[in-house]
Amino acid sequence: MKLIRFGELNNEKPGVQLADTTKIDVSEFGEDYTEQFFETDGLNRLEKWLNENQSSCKVLPENTRLGSPIARPSKLVCVGLNYAKHAAESGMDLPKEPVLFFKATSSIVGPYDTVVIPKGSTKTDWEVELAVVIGKKASYVSESEALDYVAGYVLHNDVSERAFQLEREGQWVKGKSCDTFAPLGPFLATKDEVKDPNNLHLWLKLNGKTMQDSTTSDLVFNIQEVVSYISQFMTLLPGDVISTGTPFGVGLGLKPPLYLKQGDVMELGVEGLGISKQEVVAYENL
Amino acid sequence: MKLIRFGELNNEKPGVQLADTTKIDVSEFGEDYTEQFFETDGLNRLEKWLNENQSSCKVLPENTRLGSPIARPSKLVCVGLNYAKHAAESGMDLPKEPVLFFKATSSIVGPYDTVVIPKGSTKTDWEVELAVVIGKKASYVSESEALDYVAGYVLHNDVSERAFQLEREGQWVKGKSCDTFAPLGPFLATKDEVKDPNNLHLWLKLNGKTMQDSTTSDLVFNIQEVVSYISQFMTLLPGDVISTGTPFGVGLGLKPPLYLKQGDVMELGVEGLGISKQEVVAYENL
Repeated sequence: MKLIRFGELNNEKPGVQLADTTKIDVSEFGEDYTEQFFETDGLNRLEKWLNENQSSCKVLPENTRLGSPIARPSKLVCVGLNYAKHAAESGMDLPKEPVLFFKATSSIVGPYDTVVIPKGSTKTDWEVELAVVIGKKASYVSESEALDYVAGYVLHNDVSERAFQLEREGQWVKGKSCDTFAPLGPFLATKDEVKDPNNLHLWLKLNGKTMQDSTTSDLVFNIQEVVSYISQFMTLLPGDVISTGTPFGVGLGLKPPLYLKQGDVMELGVEGLGISKQEVVAYENL
Repeated sequence: MKLIRFGELNNEKPGVQLADTTKIDVSEFGEDYTEQFFETDGLNRLEKWLNENQSSCKVLPENTRLGSPIARPSKLVCVGLNYAKHAAESGMDLPKEPVLFFKATSSIVGPYDTVVIPKGSTKTDWEVELAVVIGKKASYVSESEALDYVAGYVLHNDVSERAFQLEREGQWVKGKSCDTFAPLGPFLATKDEVKDPNNLHLWLKLNGKTMQDSTTSDLVFNIQEVVSYISQFMTLLPGDVISTGTPFGVGLGLKPPLYLKQGDVMELGVEGLGISKQEVVAYENL
C-alpha cells in the first residue's frame, strides 16, 4: 500500500495512492495516519476496509496538494555521516557507531511544498535520504528482529543550514530544524512494497543537474543496524521517523561549496518511493 | 493557576492544584493540556470554567499518581552549559551563544515516577532545571516580546547518561533521551504565578544531601534570551517545553565523578514550582 495525506498544511486528510497512481480519499476510514493508527494495526485494518470500500472512495484531482504521508510523529531521528564518501566530503571521520541527531517535527512539510531559506541563512543545503517509519513500539530491539518494527519507508529531503549546524556553538539541531526543512513523501510505501531497503537507488537533482546519485547498499550502518541501535537509547514509537543519512554530493562538499538560493528547484527520489520536488524561496520574499 | 495531570502513565487526566494544595479533577472541562489547549486560549477558558464549576470538581486522593503536567509536546528543547560554573565543571568553555539539544519526548514521566538507569549505563546523572512552557506559536520573536509567548513554568530533572552523551560518537541526544529521563512537574505554574523567572532558587538533593543549589539569576542566557534565540532556528509550538540548563553540582563534575545507582533518591525543586522526587532503579531490576 502507498499512504498519502492531502489538503492544506497541518489539516491534511488520509488517502491512498493506487497501483495505477490514482489517488483516493480514505477520510471515510475515519483515522489519520498517527501513532495510534500504527499502534492499533491500522495498516491491516485499512487494507481490509479498502477491500470493501475502495470503489466508493473519491478520486483526488491532479492538482491536490500532498502533505507529509504520516501525521506529525513524536520524533524525527536522523543518522549522520552514514555514507563513507559523504563523511569524507563533510571533512569528518567515519563514525565507529551511528551518529544520531533530531530534527524538530515542526520542520515537516509535504513533498512538493516550498523550502524556505531561513532569515540570515547563506548555507542552506540539500540531502536526499531514505527514511524508515516505525510500526510498533521498539525498545532494545535486536538487529535480526529490527525489520519487524518497521511499517514502511518514505523519501526525505533532510534540508540543512550548514552555518547554523556547524558554526553556531555545539549541536547540529539548530541547522536541521528550521520550518520546511523536512519534506516527506510523496507517499509512505508499506514494507511489503520494498524488497530490500538496503539496496535502493537514491538521487537528487538541483535545477535539473544530478548532484547526488548513490545506493543504500553503500550505507555504513544498514536499516536493521540503525533501528536496533537507536532502540538501545530511546523507545521508538509507532509513526516515528528515522532518516538514515545522505550520500555524497551535498553543497557543503563541493569545491567551492554551493548553497541554495531563491528560485532553485530540488528534485529527488528513492527507488520505489517516488519523486519529490521543492522550489526554494528566501524568507525575506515570503 | 497550577495545572496538574494525574492517573496512569500515558493516560493522564487534567487537574488543577488549588492555593491550599488540594488537587481537583477537571476532566469535565473536556480538554487535556495539549498544543490545541494552549493554542486556543485554554488557560483563560479553564480559569473561567473553574469560576463556575470548581465546587463540583472531585478532589483527588492523596496517593494519586501525578504525570507530566502537560500532554506530550511536539518538542523538548534544552539549553546546554547555561550556568558558568556548570560549564566549567563539565570541562567545556562558556558558549558565546546558547547551545541547544533535544530530548526525545518519549522520555517524559511524572514528578514522582521511577527513573530507570538504562541497560549498560554506568554514568547516569542528575540535572535540576527550570523549564518554560510555550503558550503560543513563536517564530523570530524578539527578546522584549519573548515572555508574551510563555504559558508558564515547570520543574524538570534533565537526567543524562554521560557516557552515551559524550563518549558514543557525536551528538548529545543519545545520553538525553532514554525512557524516564525527563521527570516534569509536579505542576505547571502559569506565568502570573512567577514574579521573575530570572531570579528563582533551584536545588537538588541526592539521598538527602544537597548537590545543586543555585539561582536562575546566574543563567548565562536568561529566559527572554533563550526563547527569542530558539525561535530564530525553529518555530516553537504551543505546549513545547524549553529546559533552560542546569547549575553547578552534577555527578560528572565531582572529583571523582559520582553517578546514580539502584535505590538512590533524587529530590529537587525550583522556587514556586514545587518539589519532585524520583527513586532510581536499574533496568535489569525492573
